[in-house]
Amino acid sequence: MSENKFSELKNDRFLRALQRQPVDMTPVWMMRQAGRYLPEYRATRAKAGDFMSVCKNAELACEVTLQPLERYELDAAILFSDILTIPDAMGLGLYFETGEGPKFKKTVRTEADVLALPQPDVAVDLDYVMNAVTTIRSALGGRVPLIGFSGSPWTLATYMVEGGSSKDFRTLKRMMYQQPEVLHLLLDKLAVCVTNYLNEQIRSGAQAVQIFDTWGGALSTPAYEAFSLQYMRKIVSGLIKEHDGRKVPSIVFTKNGAQWIEQIADCGADCVGLDWTVEIGDIRQRIGDKVALQGNMDPSALYGSEATIRAEVKRVLDGFGDGDGHVFNLGHGIHLDVPPENAKIFVDAVHELSAR
Amino acid sequence: MSENKFSELKNDRFLRALQRQPVDMTPVWMMRQAGRYLPEYRATRAKAGDFMSVCKNAELACEVTLQPLERYELDAAILFSDILTIPDAMGLGLYFETGEGPKFKKTVRTEADVLALPQPDVAVDLDYVMNAVTTIRSALGGRVPLIGFSGSPWTLATYMVEGGSSKDFRTLKRMMYQQPEVLHLLLDKLAVCVTNYLNEQIRSGAQAVQIFDTWGGALSTPAYEAFSLQYMRKIVSGLIKEHDGRKVPSIVFTKNGAQWIEQIADCGADCVGLDWTVEIGDIRQRIGDKVALQGNMDPSALYGSEATIRAEVKRVLDGFGDGDGHVFNLGHGIHLDVPPENAKIFVDAVHELSAR
Repeated sequence: MSENKFSELKNDRFLRALQRQPVDMTPVWMMRQAGRYLPEYRATRAKAGDFMSVCKNAELACEVTLQPLERYELDAAILFSDILTIPDAMGLGLYFETGEGPKFKKTVRTEADVLALPQPDVAVDLDYVMNAVTTIRSALGGRVPLIGFSGSPWTLATYMVEGGSSKDFRTLKRMMYQQPEVLHLLLDKLAVCVTNYLNEQIRSGAQAVQIFDTWGGALSTPAYEAFSLQYMRKIVSGLIKEHDGRKVPSIVFTKNGAQWIEQIADCGADCVGLDWTVEIGDIRQRIGDKVALQGNMDPSALYGSEATIRAEVKRVLDGFGDGDGHVFNLGHGIHLDVPPENAKIFVDAVHELSAR
Repeated sequence: MSENKFSELKNDRFLRALQRQPVDMTPVWMMRQAGRYLPEYRATRAKAGDFMSVCKNAELACEVTLQPLERYELDAAILFSDILTIPDAMGLGLYFETGEGPKFKKTVRTEADVLALPQPDVAVDLDYVMNAVTTIRSALGGRVPLIGFSGSPWTLATYMVEGGSSKDFRTLKRMMYQQPEVLHLLLDKLAVCVTNYLNEQIRSGAQAVQIFDTWGGALSTPAYEAFSLQYMRKIVSGLIKEHDGRKVPSIVFTKNGAQWIEQIADCGADCVGLDWTVEIGDIRQRIGDKVALQGNMDPSALYGSEATIRAEVKRVLDGFGDGDGHVFNLGHGIHLDVPPENAKIFVDAVHELSAR
């Protein structure tokens, strides 16, 4: 597969900012920008039946990926998919119960469970993801770059071991403190798979990739290094760095992880995502211009008035300050009950208030 | 009420450490030390019927408060109660649904709701708490000091506005960004009540007090100052500082709040609690010896072997380093499925490994 089959990229603000190159205005996208806050998304999902049916159908995944781009001047699109496709491909049986989040039919709790997990052939077993990537990239026609993504090994492990969402990861933590070697075996397997998965997304058309470490912030400092960051470092070092003549930047995002920002900034990724609980200016002071920073407005600020939203955008822009390497985003996914018009105020404010 | 009615304090390690005075060994207690991991607690609770019936009966509250002291060489007892007694006294109707955590029959979402909230007379409306404090203090016979506590205004507001537990506090955050003045009205009312509540606990026999800000870490930096820390500062400044000739130290604990440690250390409290996601040594470097530090072992480390638990205890002790002002604790409440014998290993290890 060659880059030539896709249209030339017209808006490279996002890719430039990830590489800390000058831009005319700060690029912006929103985590979960294709989602339930949009009535057109809810319509597609209703048509498909459920969430995973949208993910598994390239045309529908493409449709919802493009929906927010029709409304807002976003600088990137992100593949519509779920972070739990990998454990599903490993045979755990992903399903969703209304109001309860993701669940697995099978859990992974013993050494035998880990050893029995197959290493998926990502091009085959996750072909629906790759089809979606290629379909979306083609449909984008070069408007903005397409972001591929995966959950981090630690974050995937939380769901695989607990069997679903969890408040304090007691089963996984028990494994971590009782049988760390079993957990390492699992994380190692996952790191290999995530690397293959992201590289296959890149070969299929993804122009940047993000690793979501949603639950790394639940760890102590040495445990974060040993059980989460170490594996993300391995993944990043195994990523395709250039594809069809263009650099493919990577983003690592550990929610509640800013206490480890120096170590994360050294993991090899081009950009580090920040949640809204830290000041982006403080973080930049701590790590300098080693990596680009992505974030970090409180998603709940989108409940506010136009004046409130604009003031929050300005606060984050001013916090980052002058210089290159800022990708504007929310500090977490957009809430499902945000009025769509507020997202427009947000995106427009980022561009207007950051225009060089 | 006079101190004279109570026995003289035999073990003042905890109170001394809170004031950064020398101790023979590091004092230790565990958040939620009276709780479901103990079979004797489960027996008392079964006898009482439910959780709030234990809280509201001074004899039973005393019984469960003392249970962990019978098993472990703890250096403090903590009042058995709930952080939501104040909103309950304000008429919101606290109840517990099995497996779902606390709920309120009424919520607080409008200015009218806030204005309608009565300011409780804590000595009368929360007399069951004060009776429990006095009963426990008497029963302790001076063995160890008794800690009183309250939720922080922000943390109480999360439950009052959401009507129970919440993942991302969307209703409260909407209020914060849309009607900050209404939220301030609520927080102000709560701050007055928490101050009165803690002072009445002190008059009733509490020898130190802790403010639990469980959900302050969900805020952005300016919002944390405006909506959580500001009110804790007001409370601390209004606390009785000495009672019957002895200093009454205060502890402030914001989970996931270490990014604001400098500001928290300046709030007037004697001690700052830390969760397990930060290194206590790094924190001490940042703030020096301005306040005592409480924490901060991962509660999940208690799932480990004796060797693992002892190694974690040593790591935290070494992290704090030499000098005074360390109260050892878990970084959050002990998990309900920890084997009771592991808590003994933990408590004994703190004393043994820290003996001067």
